[in-house]
Amino acid sequence: MNKQFLLASRPTGTPSSENFKLVEVPIPDLKEGEVLVRSLYISVDPYMRGRMNDYKSYVPPYSLNEPIAGGVVGEVIESKSSQFQTGEIVMGMYGWQTNGVVNGKDLQKINSDIAPISTALGVLGMPGLTAYFGLLDIANPQAGETVVVSGAAGAVGMIVGQIAKIKGARVIGIAGSEEKINYLKEELHFDEVINYKTTSDIKADLRNACPNGVDVYFDNVGGSISDAVLLLINQGARIPLCGQISLYNLEKVDIGPRMQPLLLINSALMQGFIVSNYMSRFHEALPQMAQWVAEGKIKYKETIVEGFENMPTAFLGLFSGENIGKQLVRVAD
Amino acid sequence: MNKQFLLASRPTGTPSSENFKLVEVPIPDLKEGEVLVRSLYISVDPYMRGRMNDYKSYVPPYSLNEPIAGGVVGEVIESKSSQFQTGEIVMGMYGWQTNGVVNGKDLQKINSDIAPISTALGVLGMPGLTAYFGLLDIANPQAGETVVVSGAAGAVGMIVGQIAKIKGARVIGIAGSEEKINYLKEELHFDEVINYKTTSDIKADLRNACPNGVDVYFDNVGGSISDAVLLLINQGARIPLCGQISLYNLEKVDIGPRMQPLLLINSALMQGFIVSNYMSRFHEALPQMAQWVAEGKIKYKETIVEGFENMPTAFLGLFSGENIGKQLVRVAD
Repeated sequence: MNKQFLLASRPTGTPSSENFKLVEVPIPDLKEGEVLVRSLYISVDPYMRGRMNDYKSYVPPYSLNEPIAGGVVGEVIESKSSQFQTGEIVMGMYGWQTNGVVNGKDLQKINSDIAPISTALGVLGMPGLTAYFGLLDIANPQAGETVVVSGAAGAVGMIVGQIAKIKGARVIGIAGSEEKINYLKEELHFDEVINYKTTSDIKADLRNACPNGVDVYFDNVGGSISDAVLLLINQGARIPLCGQISLYNLEKVDIGPRMQPLLLINSALMQGFIVSNYMSRFHEALPQMAQWVAEGKIKYKETIVEGFENMPTAFLGLFSGENIGKQLVRVAD
Repeated sequence: MNKQFLLASRPTGTPSSENFKLVEVPIPDLKEGEVLVRSLYISVDPYMRGRMNDYKSYVPPYSLNEPIAGGVVGEVIESKSSQFQTGEIVMGMYGWQTNGVVNGKDLQKINSDIAPISTALGVLGMPGLTAYFGLLDIANPQAGETVVVSGAAGAVGMIVGQIAKIKGARVIGIAGSEEKINYLKEELHFDEVINYKTTSDIKADLRNACPNGVDVYFDNVGGSISDAVLLLINQGARIPLCGQISLYNLEKVDIGPRMQPLLLINSALMQGFIVSNYMSRFHEALPQMAQWVAEGKIKYKETIVEGFENMPTAFLGLFSGENIGKQLVRVAD
């Protein structure tokens, strides 16, 4: 039998466990070309919140009463594809299920010699590639420039900061707990990290941390944190828009200070993106990321929740900031 | 004697004639390398409003009790520069003065064979170059794409729309009077033009005018007009930020719906710019613009106020939308 979490209802505001339904269904027989994968690690990501709404976005909305789609690393249990052998470790997008029946064309092999297999969902997967292309392709930080990253202790943010350090930039993180801040400063050598939850004046903290202004703002969160950063942008600033997690659970369009005048007077660039825009260039990024990880220039962290039944809990924790680094659910050994 | 308009006080909100002071001062003797220019046409531009405030922008603020700087076309009356002869027509930035004593290095010769000399302040000057680089360099519209331009009947907007038509785009203008709308539709062949002052539902008008969404939004105005356009942007939309005239006279930061989520889900680009960013490429743009004007592919219009004493009136008219095309003041024949 296969366990699945279905989207039972579309959340209004902050999702709750009520929006998800756990079901057991038989595993169908494999057709020619298909592979049966036993899930080992399942990813939960902030972008999934957007797909729970029924509106146009860069990916289609989830369907009600269907399994929630997303990245999974698993082991091949049975194969009717000539490309895959039993026992191989693969990555697919079949989502919140303990087992996936997937066409071999939609699976990628994972080389466990390079790094632990879970990294295919993190630093060597979508979050790492998101950091790589958003920072290097859109923002192209130069040595000596100031790079601010919000959501700095998240799966993307902590990679952004480390790549910016590799490029010689001064890196300021914004995160929401002392544990995160200590990790970013002590382990990842961010130059400064601001705790947005405890500060009494984030604008003043940012001014102090960025005496030469802000050249790059990698935005994972949006809202008032981003408003504060934008006040400090320099001429020619670049602002990759990667996420707006502070807004995802709001029930109506948020209002805030208009930022177009700041972009105008600073000849600044703001660019929304999604990692799939860069699919044709993944092959150039992944070896570089793997090399940086192997050299210890990029470290990573995962927050792992145990047990398939805890998928919704792990997902909801993203919005209260429970995770440091990539949030995963381990569903089998 | 030389007449000058000085900035007498910094405006709060909408400027008034009280903010300007007309003075007469002697014309100094020329030093070596200097040229005396008699002003013929003086430019008034929306960006001047920003320079009347005392805050950091892409150009320094105007100083109190100094002449207001800006573009002028005039005739050389006397020259101690080997580069300029009496009777030549030149362009300089010496501003709201009936005569300028200017170093020859800061003057450009105007060839009156190409087009009327006033165009050096309009279609073949800063506004035309602003349209050219903002549209072609930042937005690069493709044949069949939909381009929306606000402030469409202004000195920049009407050139933007015509270049977009040359590139094969569908062009939608937004302007504020029936006279402007008729001109843009009948003379310049814009596909649709929306009167933002008389419409009861600009969002519906835009939806009707842009059935395939918006690929390029050239923003001259900001505020609620831009909010309405942004709701319609397509994947990969490009939004050059050229001006935000609807906000320039506000006394505090305006608030509005946050647009980062729209940029994010559409992988859209927003880029502030100022024409001087492209100074090293003016030489490539000006011959192309002159050719389009000569071929009749780009038409232009000027609104000319007579008499130096009316400089403030002409400037203030920019904010109530008095002008069609480039607003100039003619101060001598």
